[in-house]
Amino acid sequence: MTLSTVEHIDLREPWLTLGGYGLTSRLIVGIEQYTSPAMVRQVLEATESRVFITTVDPDNRRASLQLSDLAGELPLDEYLWVGTTSFARSADSALRTAQILRDSYGIDIIKLDVRDDDNRPANRATVEVAAKLREQGVTVLPFIVPDEADALDLQMMGCAAVRVMAAPVASGQGVLDPALIRRIIERLSIPVVVEGGLGSARHVTLAMELGASAVLVNTALTVARQPLRMAAAMRLAVHAGRLSYLAGPMAAAEIG
Amino acid sequence: MTLSTVEHIDLREPWLTLGGYGLTSRLIVGIEQYTSPAMVRQVLEATESRVFITTVDPDNRRASLQLSDLAGELPLDEYLWVGTTSFARSADSALRTAQILRDSYGIDIIKLDVRDDDNRPANRATVEVAAKLREQGVTVLPFIVPDEADALDLQMMGCAAVRVMAAPVASGQGVLDPALIRRIIERLSIPVVVEGGLGSARHVTLAMELGASAVLVNTALTVARQPLRMAAAMRLAVHAGRLSYLAGPMAAAEIG
Repeated sequence: MTLSTVEHIDLREPWLTLGGYGLTSRLIVGIEQYTSPAMVRQVLEATESRVFITTVDPDNRRASLQLSDLAGELPLDEYLWVGTTSFARSADSALRTAQILRDSYGIDIIKLDVRDDDNRPANRATVEVAAKLREQGVTVLPFIVPDEADALDLQMMGCAAVRVMAAPVASGQGVLDPALIRRIIERLSIPVVVEGGLGSARHVTLAMELGASAVLVNTALTVARQPLRMAAAMRLAVHAGRLSYLAGPMAAAEIG
Repeated sequence: MTLSTVEHIDLREPWLTLGGYGLTSRLIVGIEQYTSPAMVRQVLEATESRVFITTVDPDNRRASLQLSDLAGELPLDEYLWVGTTSFARSADSALRTAQILRDSYGIDIIKLDVRDDDNRPANRATVEVAAKLREQGVTVLPFIVPDEADALDLQMMGCAAVRVMAAPVASGQGVLDPALIRRIIERLSIPVVVEGGLGSARHVTLAMELGASAVLVNTALTVARQPLRMAAAMRLAVHAGRLSYLAGPMAAAEIG
């Protein structure tokens, strides 16, 4: 039984350093669903997330907040800018999105999403695009359905982190296969981010207790009756789960 | 979508007022397993719990920390003093314990536990002792295996709160029947405390998302590799779960 009181030190250490920027917040929030710049600011403040995710849609199918609208609300220079391809439904579309983000915004950190027609990560296409982007020197954060071999491939090609799906995006079902996600986390030496289907605080606590380096939430906030309160809940759930993981819970509470 | 930022107001409101003392912390920790007064102080500080639970053992089967040892470590006057009968294995033993606590310490708030030979709450004996203590004007916080009828009986006789078992004490199994516990919480108008088997932060987050007014943890801290870090995790898990419950999670994340 330790008497150490340095309980929070780990929460201030960067879990990932990208482009010289150390990420300390283990909660990342998607912001492409919001239409109000003020709301984006409030959500980022409530979650203490320091990642700013932006995108373009090369096929012009959806609107997204303009950077010029956000600049008046947020000190954008204090955020890590990450580009996402989350609207992409093909390898080609994802590659074009990444190209535009680099050419137009100078963003070379890509949250890589290639989804199939059911909006699930298309692992094979994702691995293929990740390899091409890595050849171009892009920093890649790919999103996959949990699969050990694919995760190891992505690590081997130098991806900065791997994002694994807890449950289908926007489903709110939580972590469907905790043991598998835990196994992937234990196999990989790079950070693993858990996302997709994290609909409430307990899902986030569980994901962090599995050893995830971070989680990403999105729909859970936009559909909550009180999004900012849920944002605060998610921030605390991340800390609770991380501390519990580090503290070493009782054997009966171990997973997988 | 509300823009309210008063996310934490609820966490500062008392969820129960006993003897003029408003309980704001929704995390209660059992302290009868510790042998070091300094450790008791550190655990109470890390959890921010403001309830001080003490007991006597009328059958002299176990040792317990002496109040005189603790007084040098803790500002005991800032805590709500609650007496427990958690060593009692019979209605008679519980009644005698309550009597001694009242006569010797002036404690008339009783955390009532009557356990069977398997250390599970004995509901029938508990209801019987609760009725007798209520007749004596004692404030009673009884512990039962989740059962709607027993919970309603205890409420009707004027118990201040009902404590329902998540899983067997010290099992670390979490909340075995979330739907049943949620139903009891919804049926009762008095606060419901969830306890027993809460072995890690995700169990606590879940219990609070069910609508529990508070949780009680005990063994999860003493057996964690780092008890104080786990204590901090539990404190954050309580807040995360409470805020998530209030925020109204997405429908797919609802329970029961």
